[in-house]
Amino acid sequence: MKKKIKKINASILIIGNEILSGRTQDKNIAFISNWLNSNCGISTDEVRIIPDKEKIIAENILNLSKRFNYVFTTGGIGPTHDDITAMSISKAFDVKYEYHKEAFAILEKYYGKNKFNDGRRKMAKMPRGAKLIYNPSSAAPGFKIKNVLSLPGVPSILISMIDNCKRYLVKGLKVHSKTINLYTVESNISKQLESIQKKYKKSVNIGSYPFFRLGKIGVSLVSRSSSKVLLNKVDKELKTLALKKKITILKI
Amino acid sequence: MKKKIKKINASILIIGNEILSGRTQDKNIAFISNWLNSNCGISTDEVRIIPDKEKIIAENILNLSKRFNYVFTTGGIGPTHDDITAMSISKAFDVKYEYHKEAFAILEKYYGKNKFNDGRRKMAKMPRGAKLIYNPSSAAPGFKIKNVLSLPGVPSILISMIDNCKRYLVKGLKVHSKTINLYTVESNISKQLESIQKKYKKSVNIGSYPFFRLGKIGVSLVSRSSSKVLLNKVDKELKTLALKKKITILKI
Repeated sequence: MKKKIKKINASILIIGNEILSGRTQDKNIAFISNWLNSNCGISTDEVRIIPDKEKIIAENILNLSKRFNYVFTTGGIGPTHDDITAMSISKAFDVKYEYHKEAFAILEKYYGKNKFNDGRRKMAKMPRGAKLIYNPSSAAPGFKIKNVLSLPGVPSILISMIDNCKRYLVKGLKVHSKTINLYTVESNISKQLESIQKKYKKSVNIGSYPFFRLGKIGVSLVSRSSSKVLLNKVDKELKTLALKKKITILKI
Repeated sequence: MKKKIKKINASILIIGNEILSGRTQDKNIAFISNWLNSNCGISTDEVRIIPDKEKIIAENILNLSKRFNYVFTTGGIGPTHDDITAMSISKAFDVKYEYHKEAFAILEKYYGKNKFNDGRRKMAKMPRGAKLIYNPSSAAPGFKIKNVLSLPGVPSILISMIDNCKRYLVKGLKVHSKTINLYTVESNISKQLESIQKKYKKSVNIGSYPFFRLGKIGVSLVSRSSSKVLLNKVDKELKTLALKKKITILKI
């Protein structure tokens, strides 16, 4: 008998004043969300961006870790005073914030004993009981404790590490998607679209997104479902709708 | 006597499966946050990204509108079935979801009576008591109810409308910022940086962000404060630190 795969979800907690203030444009949310769905069949159901404040981080960790299968954090695990993610997660789970032996050894080896100063040592401090997420680009590991996985904020380093999260994740149902781009306006198809969505409301989610391309207005219809069969059915109905309304389908 | 200006904060609620799934890279968060600080002295203290689900939208609206001076929503105010922001906010505040007379008139005039179909009419439905946020690019207005301001998700349209939010906002204390870029690694300055941050902990926030530029590693130190005088003092101390450590300051 085939093992039934369940829906598994995650939330992403972006920790950092630089994202919140608008100084830095976040790039990690879309990357993590896409990676989780494609590689693990895990869907991202909520994202929060919060400041570098211990109490706020701890509250959000507790809230999200109760409500979602996994919580991914980004940011705040470097060597400076504003890197307080590991300490705040220790507070949240009421465990000791201490040197992780293996992380300490990795960092000491990477920097050399003489150059392994206080700032660098700080990156080996984690909540007691944490497991490491190895970092092939700059040594300093991320960590996993309970259902929380903590990654750095620098996108290139995060990208290099994310495959090392896999061992800690239970795979879920992958969501497939199909997109049709139509040269029309949303209000021209909204009625028919709604009735197609109603027909498949339990199994397929249809999103409608206006776009502007080469001076023309259009609509991207994005259908998402864990069933490829139903996705193809919806795709057919959408194409029939375009045909009936004499709408050009844009091929990309 | 000079009127004392208070700290005023906001949260941003991004409504949309397309952002959550990673299909679309959000561009509105950084724009709104920067605009709020530069134009209104309002600081963004939390951001959430949630799916197009009525119950979830309503819960988040209630939560955020209690905790922050203002809530900005983006997305879900178009003509299709997945545009449920106005309906969900009506539910949250337990007010009727109905045609807004002025919005109806604006849209009817824009499209012409004959082309003003059901989808387009939907864009005139709002929570009872809502005030309009005018839209100079595509007519369909956003709205303001209580301390919640709802804007569309398409960045170019949002940008064209945001100045029309000003009339609904009380101005707060603007946060100024100063950035120094150093050719060094974070751990080389983390100790001294921490003591500078401690000295100014109540008035200046110093963030440290590694960067890679032209093959070189560096650190951006971003100081933020509502006091320009203190900001200049911190800037001086950071420059002295760089000088003492013989670190090159990168001029951009």
